[in-house]
Amino acid sequence: MALINENFLKLKAGYLFPEIARRVKAFTESNAEAAKRLIRCGIGDVTEPLPEAARYAMHEAVDEMGVRDSFHGYGPEQGYEFLRKAIAQNDFQARGLNVDADEIFISDGSKCDTGNILDIFGKGNKIAITDPVYPVYVDTNVMAGNTKNADEKGAFGGLVYLKCSPRNGFVPSIPSRKVDLIYLCYPNNPTGAVATKEQLTAWVNYAKANGSIILFDAAYEAYIQDPEIPHSIYEIEGARDCAIEFRSFSKNGGFTGVRCAFVVIPKTLMGTTKSGEKHPLHALWGRRHSTKFNGASYIVQKGAEALYTDEGKAQVRALIEHYMGNAALLVKACKKAKLKVYGGANAPYVWVKCPEGVSSWQMFDKMLNEANVVITPGSGFGSAGEGYFRISAFNSRANVEEVCRRIAELK
Amino acid sequence: MALINENFLKLKAGYLFPEIARRVKAFTESNAEAAKRLIRCGIGDVTEPLPEAARYAMHEAVDEMGVRDSFHGYGPEQGYEFLRKAIAQNDFQARGLNVDADEIFISDGSKCDTGNILDIFGKGNKIAITDPVYPVYVDTNVMAGNTKNADEKGAFGGLVYLKCSPRNGFVPSIPSRKVDLIYLCYPNNPTGAVATKEQLTAWVNYAKANGSIILFDAAYEAYIQDPEIPHSIYEIEGARDCAIEFRSFSKNGGFTGVRCAFVVIPKTLMGTTKSGEKHPLHALWGRRHSTKFNGASYIVQKGAEALYTDEGKAQVRALIEHYMGNAALLVKACKKAKLKVYGGANAPYVWVKCPEGVSSWQMFDKMLNEANVVITPGSGFGSAGEGYFRISAFNSRANVEEVCRRIAELK
Repeated sequence: MALINENFLKLKAGYLFPEIARRVKAFTESNAEAAKRLIRCGIGDVTEPLPEAARYAMHEAVDEMGVRDSFHGYGPEQGYEFLRKAIAQNDFQARGLNVDADEIFISDGSKCDTGNILDIFGKGNKIAITDPVYPVYVDTNVMAGNTKNADEKGAFGGLVYLKCSPRNGFVPSIPSRKVDLIYLCYPNNPTGAVATKEQLTAWVNYAKANGSIILFDAAYEAYIQDPEIPHSIYEIEGARDCAIEFRSFSKNGGFTGVRCAFVVIPKTLMGTTKSGEKHPLHALWGRRHSTKFNGASYIVQKGAEALYTDEGKAQVRALIEHYMGNAALLVKACKKAKLKVYGGANAPYVWVKCPEGVSSWQMFDKMLNEANVVITPGSGFGSAGEGYFRISAFNSRANVEEVCRRIAELK
Repeated sequence: MALINENFLKLKAGYLFPEIARRVKAFTESNAEAAKRLIRCGIGDVTEPLPEAARYAMHEAVDEMGVRDSFHGYGPEQGYEFLRKAIAQNDFQARGLNVDADEIFISDGSKCDTGNILDIFGKGNKIAITDPVYPVYVDTNVMAGNTKNADEKGAFGGLVYLKCSPRNGFVPSIPSRKVDLIYLCYPNNPTGAVATKEQLTAWVNYAKANGSIILFDAAYEAYIQDPEIPHSIYEIEGARDCAIEFRSFSKNGGFTGVRCAFVVIPKTLMGTTKSGEKHPLHALWGRRHSTKFNGASYIVQKGAEALYTDEGKAQVRALIEHYMGNAALLVKACKKAKLKVYGGANAPYVWVKCPEGVSSWQMFDKMLNEANVVITPGSGFGSAGEGYFRISAFNSRANVEEVCRRIAELK
């Protein structure tokens, strides 16, 4: 008999966003009129048109595919050099950071990358995640057998939860116990918090002292407005020896439906065998990537490259300004409604405290039924998210203005 | 210390195709003149322009992304219904097969799918692969910890190798021992062999009797010329209870650089826990797919859908005819050169016996140095491939004619 991976059975009822989709579907099916007014600020998905530079480049790439001499079949699994060079130069070297094009692996998404990265790590690592957290980090560890069962609150045995709250500015304090892998995401999904240079330095120092690896998710770095906030973990001295960075074109270039992302693994970064032998993680991931992945679409990679042209950069900037303008309006509206609000200053997410005595899912239902606005319940991101909800700033200006009016009218 | 997955250290020196690339690079760097004559028939990569129907649809999709009302962000992880319906109708229902659109999962490639599928299976399964075989099946099992170390011949302990040779028509005989997962690929890469309805029926009966799962890779089904040969495992009675099928647009629509594929998991297909509880594999893969994958590119899915229009079908047919015309020429040239040749009749691969006393890599070097033609050494696909080489029919007609002339001149 073919045995299944029983770790899957430990997973809780469905990933957060499918559950939201289910509730929204039930609501719209029974409230045809209210359904027409529905505004979705739940899932963090971009809404505005794809930058012209990317579209132009993709049209060109499609045309190239129609001519034998410029047809592109299998590309290099690691990604085309034209894109890896553009990334290395613009995202890292232009900021004075030592990241080489050879240390970059192009993929079709950060969700895939942050999940698949576990393939190169062994059993027995102590894994730390923040709480609240992007659910994919947790669920992929459950699937990989790195956890025990969940308790009644949904916390999985074996994981080290690093609580994030207003008290620590939603950046976890250094743990007293030793952990081997640490997921950090800044600017943060879901809280919209950012980590300062000092905070990240403390983590890098901890990781170096303990031989830990930081899995740094910087998918939202383009939203940072404060010049003092690091965009990359490699801005921190020593990070090349202890950190992998995940980046995506989803939220800067609006590529959520186009699909392109990348991982940076410095060649200096080492993991260890149980017997203490050191092995470069770059080579392990290279082997994983070339065996279980066949390169991102040529057409998509040409589109991503175009985001680094002058026009592309200006168009990305305009998108970021648009969404951050939305975030500012949402923060203002929540404050005016006497809601305690966090985030929204360097990230496209606004993290709001529910009124006293109202749970996250109660707030979700209230916003859905009274305001006809879909938000994300904080508890969906972990037990420390209970009592909060997330509003995404990814929307049209008109919709966000309407959401602000409805927040003002909430009872 | 962060522990690595030590199973990676069991892998042999590099995946086959990178090794070929290394030898070709060394050759071209030291033989500038001969390098100009080089014709690549190694890696099975398409060479001809992408069908116009797909290009047209992708241009339209890129334009849609430029307008807010038709912009597409995150798509359904399982794939857009428009594509899943087109697949279900054209590839299955039109052939009288009971496969529903809901049983199809769109992805960015079959290499990913055939590797990732192991995520849903547990430890302790007895795994059977053919020999010779597409190396990804082996390497992904090694990475997942499903094997012991390799012996001096490169065979991994713990795997059951099903020898394929001219004696069994390169279709493995039913094993006497019990196995739980069985990889079958027909039309076969690398041998170009096909499996008859009777042969597949024997495997389905075996799988049903033993509770095994057949992982059926049908990436090359479009090349089948003989009307008696099944295109899908679901043409076999009972296969819905024991088989997963992998399909790709790489080799029919020429999508190797565009990236789109799919998996069929019938809702009736069950795996078991160690304690004997049955669980539908469809739900497990659905959970895996929605947690570790974020949908294939919208633009790419629109391109794939267009392959099912009347124009798209005609253009795909023309591509297949072109490549099969090449295969016929290669078969003829090899026979004329007194080489024993297999495949090439229902598959784009020609599988050739090396002259007496010549090993696969010796033949590779001979073809590279004397004929300036890159082929694939049979031993790269497993020890039963030793003494054979694979010629890919993916090329221009002019190149294939030139390869035929050079085969005739071989000493």
